[in-house]
Amino acid sequence: MTDVTRDVAEDEEDVYGLTAELVRGVHEAIADGSVARIEELVEPLHAADVADLLEALDPEERRLLIAVIRHTFDPETLSYLDETVREEVMELIGPQELAHAIAVLDTDDAIDLLEDLDEEEKRRILESVPAEDRRALEEGLTYPEDSAGRLMQRELVAVPQHFTVGQTIDFLRASRDLPDDFYDLFVVDPHHHPVGSVPLSRAMRSGRTVRLADIMETELRPVSVTMDQESVAHLFRQYGLVSTPVVDESDRLVGVITVDDVVLVIDEEAEEDLLAFVGAGETDFHAPPIEVAWARVRWLFVTLINAAIASSVILQFEATIEEIVALAVLMPIVAAMGGNAGVQVVATVVRALATRRVSPWSNLWRVVGKEVVVNAINAAVFAAVVGTGAALWFDNWPLGGVLAGAMVFNMVWAGFAGTVIPLTLARLKIDPAIGAGPFLTTTTDVLGFFAFLGLATLFLL
Amino acid sequence: MTDVTRDVAEDEEDVYGLTAELVRGVHEAIADGSVARIEELVEPLHAADVADLLEALDPEERRLLIAVIRHTFDPETLSYLDETVREEVMELIGPQELAHAIAVLDTDDAIDLLEDLDEEEKRRILESVPAEDRRALEEGLTYPEDSAGRLMQRELVAVPQHFTVGQTIDFLRASRDLPDDFYDLFVVDPHHHPVGSVPLSRAMRSGRTVRLADIMETELRPVSVTMDQESVAHLFRQYGLVSTPVVDESDRLVGVITVDDVVLVIDEEAEEDLLAFVGAGETDFHAPPIEVAWARVRWLFVTLINAAIASSVILQFEATIEEIVALAVLMPIVAAMGGNAGVQVVATVVRALATRRVSPWSNLWRVVGKEVVVNAINAAVFAAVVGTGAALWFDNWPLGGVLAGAMVFNMVWAGFAGTVIPLTLARLKIDPAIGAGPFLTTTTDVLGFFAFLGLATLFLL
Repeated sequence: MTDVTRDVAEDEEDVYGLTAELVRGVHEAIADGSVARIEELVEPLHAADVADLLEALDPEERRLLIAVIRHTFDPETLSYLDETVREEVMELIGPQELAHAIAVLDTDDAIDLLEDLDEEEKRRILESVPAEDRRALEEGLTYPEDSAGRLMQRELVAVPQHFTVGQTIDFLRASRDLPDDFYDLFVVDPHHHPVGSVPLSRAMRSGRTVRLADIMETELRPVSVTMDQESVAHLFRQYGLVSTPVVDESDRLVGVITVDDVVLVIDEEAEEDLLAFVGAGETDFHAPPIEVAWARVRWLFVTLINAAIASSVILQFEATIEEIVALAVLMPIVAAMGGNAGVQVVATVVRALATRRVSPWSNLWRVVGKEVVVNAINAAVFAAVVGTGAALWFDNWPLGGVLAGAMVFNMVWAGFAGTVIPLTLARLKIDPAIGAGPFLTTTTDVLGFFAFLGLATLFLL
Repeated sequence: MTDVTRDVAEDEEDVYGLTAELVRGVHEAIADGSVARIEELVEPLHAADVADLLEALDPEERRLLIAVIRHTFDPETLSYLDETVREEVMELIGPQELAHAIAVLDTDDAIDLLEDLDEEEKRRILESVPAEDRRALEEGLTYPEDSAGRLMQRELVAVPQHFTVGQTIDFLRASRDLPDDFYDLFVVDPHHHPVGSVPLSRAMRSGRTVRLADIMETELRPVSVTMDQESVAHLFRQYGLVSTPVVDESDRLVGVITVDDVVLVIDEEAEEDLLAFVGAGETDFHAPPIEVAWARVRWLFVTLINAAIASSVILQFEATIEEIVALAVLMPIVAAMGGNAGVQVVATVVRALATRRVSPWSNLWRVVGKEVVVNAINAAVFAAVVGTGAALWFDNWPLGGVLAGAMVFNMVWAGFAGTVIPLTLARLKIDPAIGAGPFLTTTTDVLGFFAFLGLATLFLL
């Protein structure tokens, strides 16, 4: 984010359907109970904008708006909603409309809605869906959460190897059950194994008599239904893919993942990374306060344990502090500098892992070595400045020396721990971003206080 | 990131061209000086994998590898490289190969390479590029960095309104200068203003006699060449776009942005967000240590100022601490809890701003109110636990009460400041993620120490 978010007023309003003005208009129309006005304002909006509008309203307004637009409600809107508001809206539109929505949506979006429901509701809704769709949905729900199987849509265009461009075009023109949008034609063998893909742009500019087998891309990168969605996202990023085939255990083509789904995954993962990093837990932005508070408790608790350990370290040096109170004054500097230098390293390593610039199995010592060197450089500079400053401030050169020594120790440690902690978590198959901040600062607080007070006890008493 | 990164060994290796084994093989082949073996290993790789391979090698190995593959070098490889390694490789392949690469690449990728060069080099390279391409590149370079103009490619397919599907297909078959891949046909009026777009899949399944004007999407969302790339990314995300037209000041169609470019932007912005958050600055992962250290100095300096202020607050209460050393033992708890509760809030608000769930101009007090309530809930719980714990530990109930009071104050403050700081930065058009962590903890450290030691001075002496 360089200089963004805030140009909204100037250059964005005209590309978005939902303006601040329109939201105000809807607020007023709802307050006035003017059904005609509400319909007039909401009707031209894109489903994504209706979703944003619903999120901007109070629950009571939301209820009234849904009552008005219920029968013209675009099922796509549900896909764009955050979880909390979505559950509310699904409740409001009722099971019948919901079953309709699920039948209309692409399988990936439909499964997205279904997976949040409890078993009883899920069963009831599925019963009202046409048998053919139902089977696809039930199968989709058997794939693990956040897997390629959940992300893919089953709607795709597969053609046999012997087809020509002309035959394909005729087939597409005659077909009634095609996906809304597709970007590649998948060429399959008689066992329905994908053997190639033809970008539509390539098919369109080839002559009618050209065989698809002669123009197809054979370097397919089919993913398995069980592949994790983040791995899928990385694959798209790595090779600049627009769509990729998904295959089952017997390598048969069962679906396709398109890049627009991947955009959402990348975004979701980025969000999880930042929130996990500070230990804010995963709740959506519209969740009620008590739920948000609960999601954050775990890492506050870890922070508390951390602080308690730091306190008990300090307690060991009570006598030293009683002697030299300046130590209590200066000790937060050691902890803060180590902590900040450490989270800089952790953030760098977490991102390098997320973007596969570093693999958990890559040469640990090469990565560690670099970060230790980086922090040693900064430690040397800051320790010199701060040590001199403290020596002058308290007119006590040994004190300045002890402070500088503790800082160098703590910042170099931060370079080491900031690399080893996330890489070790990754090797243990734990998300390296989870609580990386609190974890790291535990070590820099505890060791920072220990080093500073310990050196002081050794050299200043 | 849920449970990822680390399944690499199991389910990923087969979809990626670059395996750990292959990297080892190349290391060995380079060490043996076996040109044939190097070529054999590298030849089948995708450009993205060659880029990763180059990044995995030492500078010396890189030099040798480039010497071997120089004449079969795929220009696309350059687009996939991180900045530091890219500059090295551009140096190695030499100006002639570079000019060739720039002529071959799509305009957006070519400009990406050019913008990093110094003026002299840029001019020299541009001189070797065919006149027609040169003009497009020079114009591209006039657009602001990180703008839609830089992101777009000029290669697109525009057709007049009166064309039928059949005419379009014939036109595509006859054209020699088409982009490699495209997903939409843009319909333009005689002034070259975009009036609609037709997804290829729709064109392909319509009969030859159907007019494009009758099947085109008229709800275009053309972006201006000057729009910031993050706004562009948000537009794609909001409406699930695959490509969008770019227009100049007189609304003429000048280019197209496709979703694969946007994937890179979203990823880049997520990276910047996390690194900016901890104040790690923007360097790429392969930059030399001294450069990385320099990028991080700024926020370490801010942290130091912060810590110095905190120290001077503590100094004011030297007499109190001399009296009750337990205060020095407990004070890090107040700072740590406030700091962690605060960064949780800041991270949540920064993400809400980045994804436009909150606009800088939305109701400040509604957002603030919620975060204050969330933190007040957690503050009440933790203050009760910690206050009681400290009272029992030091057998001093007034001390426990003061600790609890300071914690409640600091955590509620963290909820307030954690919301107001990023929203205010956003209103001032400063990236709200920049140094959000260090900023926030300045306030929670200083106020935490002040509240705790102040209350202690009032009630415990």
